[in-house]
Amino acid sequence: MSSRSRISLALRRARIAQPIHPRQLRPLSQIRWQSTASTEDAEGVAKGTTGTSKTVKFTSETYPEIKRDSRFAEITADHVKHFKELLGKDAAVIDGVTQDATDDIEPFNGDWMRKYRGHTKLVLKPGSTEEVSKVLKYCNDNMLAVVPQGGNSGLVGGSVPVFDEIVINMSRMNQIRSFDDVSGTLVADAGCILEVADGYLAERGHIFPLDLGAKGSCHIGGNVATNAGGLRLLRYGSLHGNVLGLEAVLPDGTIVDDLSKLRKNNTGYDLKQLFIGAEGTIGIITAVSIICPQRSNAINVAFFGLESFEKVQQAFREAKGQLSEILSAFELMDSHSQDLVHAVTKNKRPLESECPFYCLVETSGSNSEHDNEKLEKFLEYVMEKEIVLDGVVAQDETQVKALWGWREGIPECLGHWGGVYKYDLSIPINELYTLVDDVREKITDAGLIGEGEEHPVVDVVGYGHMGDSNLHLNVATRRYDKKVEKELEPFVYEWVSKRNGSISAEHGLGLAKKNYIGYSRSDTMVALMKQIKNLYDPNGIMNPYKYI
Amino acid sequence: MSSRSRISLALRRARIAQPIHPRQLRPLSQIRWQSTASTEDAEGVAKGTTGTSKTVKFTSETYPEIKRDSRFAEITADHVKHFKELLGKDAAVIDGVTQDATDDIEPFNGDWMRKYRGHTKLVLKPGSTEEVSKVLKYCNDNMLAVVPQGGNSGLVGGSVPVFDEIVINMSRMNQIRSFDDVSGTLVADAGCILEVADGYLAERGHIFPLDLGAKGSCHIGGNVATNAGGLRLLRYGSLHGNVLGLEAVLPDGTIVDDLSKLRKNNTGYDLKQLFIGAEGTIGIITAVSIICPQRSNAINVAFFGLESFEKVQQAFREAKGQLSEILSAFELMDSHSQDLVHAVTKNKRPLESECPFYCLVETSGSNSEHDNEKLEKFLEYVMEKEIVLDGVVAQDETQVKALWGWREGIPECLGHWGGVYKYDLSIPINELYTLVDDVREKITDAGLIGEGEEHPVVDVVGYGHMGDSNLHLNVATRRYDKKVEKELEPFVYEWVSKRNGSISAEHGLGLAKKNYIGYSRSDTMVALMKQIKNLYDPNGIMNPYKYI
Repeated sequence: MSSRSRISLALRRARIAQPIHPRQLRPLSQIRWQSTASTEDAEGVAKGTTGTSKTVKFTSETYPEIKRDSRFAEITADHVKHFKELLGKDAAVIDGVTQDATDDIEPFNGDWMRKYRGHTKLVLKPGSTEEVSKVLKYCNDNMLAVVPQGGNSGLVGGSVPVFDEIVINMSRMNQIRSFDDVSGTLVADAGCILEVADGYLAERGHIFPLDLGAKGSCHIGGNVATNAGGLRLLRYGSLHGNVLGLEAVLPDGTIVDDLSKLRKNNTGYDLKQLFIGAEGTIGIITAVSIICPQRSNAINVAFFGLESFEKVQQAFREAKGQLSEILSAFELMDSHSQDLVHAVTKNKRPLESECPFYCLVETSGSNSEHDNEKLEKFLEYVMEKEIVLDGVVAQDETQVKALWGWREGIPECLGHWGGVYKYDLSIPINELYTLVDDVREKITDAGLIGEGEEHPVVDVVGYGHMGDSNLHLNVATRRYDKKVEKELEPFVYEWVSKRNGSISAEHGLGLAKKNYIGYSRSDTMVALMKQIKNLYDPNGIMNPYKYI
Repeated sequence: MSSRSRISLALRRARIAQPIHPRQLRPLSQIRWQSTASTEDAEGVAKGTTGTSKTVKFTSETYPEIKRDSRFAEITADHVKHFKELLGKDAAVIDGVTQDATDDIEPFNGDWMRKYRGHTKLVLKPGSTEEVSKVLKYCNDNMLAVVPQGGNSGLVGGSVPVFDEIVINMSRMNQIRSFDDVSGTLVADAGCILEVADGYLAERGHIFPLDLGAKGSCHIGGNVATNAGGLRLLRYGSLHGNVLGLEAVLPDGTIVDDLSKLRKNNTGYDLKQLFIGAEGTIGIITAVSIICPQRSNAINVAFFGLESFEKVQQAFREAKGQLSEILSAFELMDSHSQDLVHAVTKNKRPLESECPFYCLVETSGSNSEHDNEKLEKFLEYVMEKEIVLDGVVAQDETQVKALWGWREGIPECLGHWGGVYKYDLSIPINELYTLVDDVREKITDAGLIGEGEEHPVVDVVGYGHMGDSNLHLNVATRRYDKKVEKELEPFVYEWVSKRNGSISAEHGLGLAKKNYIGYSRSDTMVALMKQIKNLYDPNGIMNPYKYI
C-alpha cells in the first residue's frame, strides 16, 4: 500500500464546522463533500471478530447425503511412514494417524467461516514441485484422496476435507522465483501470500493485478486455482488474461511445465487455462508466472451516498465514461451492510447522512494533477445532476484505507453474529439489486429476521463489484439454520438462472455450489467438463465431493 | 477509426522552413519535431501489391513429405448432393466435384502470401450454427477431412487445405447478435469482419479490444481461433482475458453453448479457453462474446528515429513509465523495413533524417489536454536525454493513419518482390533485435542477399510489437528458395529456443510451424496437447496435417 499517495484534491462538506484536515483547500459550497472523519484502520478491526466459540459441525453431519467414496483407501501407518521419508522433515508432516494431533490438525480441517469441518488426520507440506509430484503419484497409485490447500480463505468449502482426504498444504512453497522489471513478469511459488507478493512488487514500482479482502492470508496459487476476481478486475482484467504461465502437477505425478514468461506464445492449446478456476480438481498448481502492471503514483478514493439503485447505475455509467482509463474500482454497498459494519467496528461513518446505497470509487493513474482534475469534474457532475446525495474524498493514505475498510470489512463483520449465508452472483446490472430486496422480503415474510435469539437472521445485505456486475448477497445469521436455507435455496439460484446470470461469479463451486452448476451451465457443458475431469484425474482422488 | 480525433499537440522540427500545418503552436527549438509530411493513406497503398503472376506451387509439391491421410474418404457426388440439400442454397456450396469450378474455388485453396495452395474441390458456407453442426457431424461420420476458414488472412497456412479437405468458410455467418452499452459486451457471429465489428462499436463509443493489419478482411472467429495479438495487446490484453464466451461446434456435431455475456462466471472448467488459439483443430467457433472497452476520445501518435536498439529499449521504458495508463501501442520498425515500404509506396517519409530504428508510440485516453501534456513531457524528456534522434507527432486523423501506414504497411509491402519468409517470435526484450542482425549476417555470408534476380533475398528486416516483446523477423525474397530456407531453419528456431522464447508469438502454428513446436514446448506439453486433440477430434478430421 506504500504507493497510495496523499491525495491533494480537497473538497469538503460545507456544514462541517471543524475541518479535520488543515490541508483542505477550495471549499466548494455547491458541492457538499467532507473529509473522512475516521482515520481508524477498519481493515484491522474486522480481525478476529468472526464466529463464536460454538463447535463447528462436521460437514459430513451437515450434509448426511454425502457419503465417503469407498474406492478411496484408508490412511495407514505405512502411508504416513512413506510420506515422512519422502518429505524428509518432521515439520512437513502433521501426523494424526499414528498419534493424537487433533489440535495441530484442526485448523486444516475447517474454514474461516466455521461452516465446514473435515475429518483429516494427515497434513502434508511439500517443499518443492518434485515433492508435490512424488506425493501425488503415491496418492494416485494408492487411491488416497487429497485436498490441495492454499491460504484456506475460500468461501465455498473448497479447500478443506469432507472426510479423511489428505490435506496438501502449499505454505512451504512461498518464494518469489524471479521478477523482470521491464516486462513486469513475476514468477512465484504457489504458496506465496498475495500481500507478500504485492509488497515485493510495490518496492519495484509494480502491482499484483489482483486484490481482495483476504490478501493477508490467501496464496496466489489458490487465487489462480479459484480464478479469484476481487476488487480491481474492472481495471486489470481477469487471471485468464494476466497469468502467462503455470507449473502444475497432475495426479499421476506429471509436472505440467508451462511456466512461460512470455506475453505471447501461440504454440498449441493453452492448457494452463484449464487449471485457472479448476479448484484443485485436476492437479495442484505449484508456481505462477503473471504479468504485473506498473503501480500507479496517484490513488484517489471517493465514497458516495445515493438515494436509489437507479442512481447507482447512473453514477457507474458516468464514472466509466468520465474516469475511463483511471477508474480502478467501483464498489457497491447497501445501507444494511454498512449498518452491520458500524455495529461491529463502532467506527465513525464516512458520511453524516444515511443513504440507502453507498459507492466507493477508486482511481489509479500516473499523474495526480490530471487524476484530481478528472475526479473533481466527475464529482461536480454527479452532484450537480443530483445523481449522488452526499460524498467524501480521502485526503491521505490513512483515509484511503479507512474508506476501503467500509467495503473490505463487510465479509468479516457479517460473521460477527454466528454465520453468513453467502451468494456470489453475476446478474445483469439493471436487476443487480432487485434480488436483495426480493430475498429480504421472503425472509421477512417467513418471520426469520429480527432482533433476539429467536430470529436466526440478523439482516439480508447486498454489496459487491458493480463494475463487474457481481453482487454479493449475504445473509448474516445467528446460527446456520435449515429453515433459512430452505427460504434461500433454490430460490436464489432459480432467480439468477432466469436472468442468465452466474450462481458463482468469483468464489467458485467448492462443496457449496457443486449441486447447483446446472443453474448456470447446460447439460452439454457439464458433460464436457466431466470429460476433462476424467481425462486428468481418472481415479477421482483430487478434491473429491466438490466442484462438478 | 472515426474517433481518432485531431491532435492538438503540435511540436515541430525547427529546421523545417515551411510548416505543413498552420495549426502548429509553440515551436520548441530545443525539440526538433516536425509535422508529418505525407498525408497519403499508406494503408491503402499496400493493397494489391503482393505477389507476382507466377503460379503458386501446391503445398503437396512444396512439402512432398506430407502425405494425404488415407483414412479420409474421397469426396463423392453423393456427399455433394447431401451438402446441397442440407445447406439449401446454391450459394452455400461451391461444387468442384461434379463440375468444373476451378476459378471459383481457387481463392479458397490459397493464402494471400501465395505460399500455400491446396487441392480442395468443395467449399461449404453454412449460414447458422445448426448448419455447421450438421455439416461437421456428417463429415465426422463419413471421415471427410475439413478446414475451417475465416477471412483467410493467416500467415502460417492454417486456413487453406493441403489436399482435398473440405473448406468450411464462415463468411455467411456475419451478423452482430447483440451489444450492451453499459457492460460493453458484444456478441457476434464468427464470420463478422473485424473492421465491421469495430465500426459498429465505434458508433456506440466502444472499441474492439484487438486491432491488426488485416482488419479489413479477417473474421473475429478466426482472430479468436488463432488467438490474434495485434497492435494493442499492450493496452487491452489478450483474447484469453477479453473473450467472455464462445459458441463452437465439435466434430461430432455437439454445440458447445458457452456464449456467456458475464464478466465473471466461476462455474466449472473454462473450456472455451481451449478453442482460443486451437486453430480450428478441435472444433469450429461459430460465435463470440467479448468485452469491449470504451473508445478513447483522444488518440495521439508519435513517430521517432533512434540511433540504436539500446535507445529503443530506453524509449520503451520511459513510455511505459510516463505514459502509463494511456500508452496503447509501442511499435518497432528497423530502417530496412522502412526502406522497403518506401520503395513500394513511394510515400514521403515521416522523418527527414535516416535512422537505424524507428518507433511508433500511440496514446489513447479520455482527455486530450491531459494526454497531450503527458506526451509532450515524455517527448521533451526523450529528446533532452538524447534517447531519440528525431520525431514527429501526427496533427490530425489523416496523419495518424499515415504514420500507422509505415508500420501496418510492412507485411504487404514486403511481398512485393515475390515472397516473404516470416517469423513471429517472442524473445526477451534485451535480445529482441540481435536475431535480425545475426540472420542478416548469415544470409549475407551465404551470398544470398543483393540486387538482381541472381540473389533470392531482397533484405532481412525486423519490426513488431516492442511492448509485447514480439519480433517479426521477415526475409523479403524474389522467390521461395530452399537455399534460403536452409540458412533460416532450424537456425532461427534454435536461436529462439536457447533464449526460452516462442517460435510463434501470435501467428500460430498452422502448417508452417507444426514441426517446430518442440523448440518452444516440452515433450510433456506436446503429449498433453495431443491428448486434448484426441479427446475432441478422435477421427482427426479437423484441419489435418497442421498444428501439433
